[in-house]
Amino acid sequence: MTSDKYPAKQHARTVTKQLFSLQPKFFSSDLNNSGSPLFLLASPQSVNWPFCDQQQPFRQNRNFYYLSGCDRPDCYLTYDTLNDKLVLYLPPIDDEDVMWSGMPETILEAQEHYDVDEIRLTPQLGSDVSILVDRTVFTVEPLVKAETRKEAFITATFGHLRESDPFLLSALEEARLTKDEYELSLMRRASLISDKAHYRVMANLKEAFNETHVHAEFVYHSIREGSKNQSYDPICCSGRTCSTLHWVTNDQDTAGKQLLLIDAGAEWKNYASDVTRVLPFNGEWTKEARSIYDLVLKMQSECMSRVRPGILWDDLHLLAHEILIEGFLELGIFKGGSKEEILESRISAAFLPHGLGHTLGMDTHDTAGHANYSDPDLLFRYLRIRRKLIPGMMITVEPGVYFSPFVIDPFLKGELGQPGAEKYIDRLLLEKYWDVGGVRIEDDVLVTENGFENFTKVTKDPDEIAEIVKSGKAPDWVYV
Amino acid sequence: MTSDKYPAKQHARTVTKQLFSLQPKFFSSDLNNSGSPLFLLASPQSVNWPFCDQQQPFRQNRNFYYLSGCDRPDCYLTYDTLNDKLVLYLPPIDDEDVMWSGMPETILEAQEHYDVDEIRLTPQLGSDVSILVDRTVFTVEPLVKAETRKEAFITATFGHLRESDPFLLSALEEARLTKDEYELSLMRRASLISDKAHYRVMANLKEAFNETHVHAEFVYHSIREGSKNQSYDPICCSGRTCSTLHWVTNDQDTAGKQLLLIDAGAEWKNYASDVTRVLPFNGEWTKEARSIYDLVLKMQSECMSRVRPGILWDDLHLLAHEILIEGFLELGIFKGGSKEEILESRISAAFLPHGLGHTLGMDTHDTAGHANYSDPDLLFRYLRIRRKLIPGMMITVEPGVYFSPFVIDPFLKGELGQPGAEKYIDRLLLEKYWDVGGVRIEDDVLVTENGFENFTKVTKDPDEIAEIVKSGKAPDWVYV
Repeated sequence: MTSDKYPAKQHARTVTKQLFSLQPKFFSSDLNNSGSPLFLLASPQSVNWPFCDQQQPFRQNRNFYYLSGCDRPDCYLTYDTLNDKLVLYLPPIDDEDVMWSGMPETILEAQEHYDVDEIRLTPQLGSDVSILVDRTVFTVEPLVKAETRKEAFITATFGHLRESDPFLLSALEEARLTKDEYELSLMRRASLISDKAHYRVMANLKEAFNETHVHAEFVYHSIREGSKNQSYDPICCSGRTCSTLHWVTNDQDTAGKQLLLIDAGAEWKNYASDVTRVLPFNGEWTKEARSIYDLVLKMQSECMSRVRPGILWDDLHLLAHEILIEGFLELGIFKGGSKEEILESRISAAFLPHGLGHTLGMDTHDTAGHANYSDPDLLFRYLRIRRKLIPGMMITVEPGVYFSPFVIDPFLKGELGQPGAEKYIDRLLLEKYWDVGGVRIEDDVLVTENGFENFTKVTKDPDEIAEIVKSGKAPDWVYV
Repeated sequence: MTSDKYPAKQHARTVTKQLFSLQPKFFSSDLNNSGSPLFLLASPQSVNWPFCDQQQPFRQNRNFYYLSGCDRPDCYLTYDTLNDKLVLYLPPIDDEDVMWSGMPETILEAQEHYDVDEIRLTPQLGSDVSILVDRTVFTVEPLVKAETRKEAFITATFGHLRESDPFLLSALEEARLTKDEYELSLMRRASLISDKAHYRVMANLKEAFNETHVHAEFVYHSIREGSKNQSYDPICCSGRTCSTLHWVTNDQDTAGKQLLLIDAGAEWKNYASDVTRVLPFNGEWTKEARSIYDLVLKMQSECMSRVRPGILWDDLHLLAHEILIEGFLELGIFKGGSKEEILESRISAAFLPHGLGHTLGMDTHDTAGHANYSDPDLLFRYLRIRRKLIPGMMITVEPGVYFSPFVIDPFLKGELGQPGAEKYIDRLLLEKYWDVGGVRIEDDVLVTENGFENFTKVTKDPDEIAEIVKSGKAPDWVYV
């Protein structure tokens, strides 16, 4: 095993440690088993679209990848916590498939590729598991009893089976929360590709007559850099569509609009980046757009500068709202109350309805954030991280300010927030901001031992952005 | 209902007619029902990736689209063949979803968009169906009893239910086989986008240092033209990967390779195009590459020129093999036997293992081709159309010649074809062709009353291609 392999074995050990800390009794021999779990995971099965011979897009099961580094469908893995043995099961080579899709890796090649103890073939799985009949088998999904998986388990005997075990899932999610150096190197690569693609969008904004042109630009440069998949469907907004948080229709003309918002990230070997930038069309900020942009930038810099181990994320989210409120009071959009009263009224949630950020990893909204989507407090309901930061966490820092009638109207009608909260809004002045649409600035940040490291290098300086849009020229390194 | 709507209602009538011709008894009142089927179809449900809040890519159910023109998930439709009444059920608007995704169409807007008699909301489906309890309800998929659909049917009473009815499926597939003018206009648009994107790939081949650059180029121009989805994952091959029929890894460097093969098609409003072109790197054909290219081009022109109603597709496929064999005899790759003997030996299947073409529509490999994948005759096993052509069919004409060791080796070892077939191959001469990889030329063709119309306009003239690759300049209309 060399260090250039995805560290699957180490991940298996980390998950085991997490599981032990959650439920030490799983490892004690006083249970009706030998006292050491066997993990059994599967990659998704290849599936065609209904009534059609075309395969559905494949996306590797993240937990499976974490424990194998293998990006193929129709595989299984077992990890024996007692003997620290990780086995990857690959499907046998199908001659007909070779004609259509080419030769898959051989067992010898797979032994070179993957950081596992043994490569075996899926038909061997059933009898292999049966030998370990004294052990408790843990799965994350309803695997063994799944009708479509029957073939793999037809010869298997299970002594003790814990299917869809919530403890194993939690252990995986907690393990995935902090990234090791190998994972971080993949995420740096994803970030670099995103940086370049975002700069290209900036430098070519003059060619974007429709949102779909922005989409095309980002995807083009990502694929050229080998990032075939995006972490998520690119969000390309212009003018008022900037107020729709996950606008992916990307079909509006840009003429006459103030701002372009692009929220897009390249994926590198299943690891995500997630970056948002806002650009003024023609390189000209309107007064209103610039004032909102500057405010969001301040929210972001203030919050990001406080990122360090031990900080409760809720507190930074609250800080973002406080700065928003101060800014809105200065602009006059908020009025008639103190910062404290307005914060208490929750009316700022009308303009920043989402959370300050989320964990980032293989999933764009990654694991173990411990969100509480039924929090009665509006301000925190959509906050996806509700815990103290620890070193190795990758998070996004992404405050925003939006002018969405669908979100703001219920507040203006007094249907949300505290009773009477709507009195703090200057409705006449608000009219000037609908065309700003929305501003979000989002970077990908690693929590380090002493603070943070920002992986996102694409500029967010509003003057520099304007200059690049005008000149059509990004920094030289982008073109390398 | 105006002619600018997708003709869902007419499609419902066509399907009814097809079902009647398949099983008139479904429409007679001597069965235990009123004698007129009710069709019940559903669009796919929105589904997230496992343990993650990100939606899986959505692809509309083709049969659902055919009967509705609606491209949304979580919908239902009913068609009452007795009263000729088509009803589309949309999900109620979810306020939280509006914040994230924007406002969906309202019922009023939907009435404008769709060629249906009525728009209703999905919670109304159960009681609506129950009123028609004397009718037999036909579904295409296991819909009503599907666990995940339970909510929609919890209030429903069914008198007679034919779930996953093979006759309704056949009726849909036969109806979809021939395209109406509206569908053809969508397919013309898809073809035009593909033409332009293929020309761009040609003109920018000099920038393609890796297969992924070709992929990026095609996708970029498709998305710019509003074709967000490709009909299928673009196949971008260079050198020896050209011999893998569905190579989608697209990650090989192109330096030193002879040919680039790109098989890619834009999708327009769920209708596919499917086009393959082969380009010489640097605009220079090697002697071997050019001879194989000319041969495939001859196979294609000869077969396409014979496309007309009444022609049995098997015969054209056979003609392609005959021309291949003549060409290989001239080149000396085949030897030691007459054209007839070699055809009989099935050894040509080693070089053209796939079929001459397939039906094309919403699915890339569209419906009602009546392939026989267990045909003992190797020459026809992968032929996806086994019927006489009729006007309105859209088909691909895509002969190819490949030098794939994985496909050819078993023939050379005498394991496939007729006994002794391997004697017809000049193995020494074959060595010169491995680096050609493979050539496929594929156009999209409509069967008309008197012949055919080729929708694909991108050039396949080898000299013109070489010139465009060299000059980096496509025809002017491409840049419009």
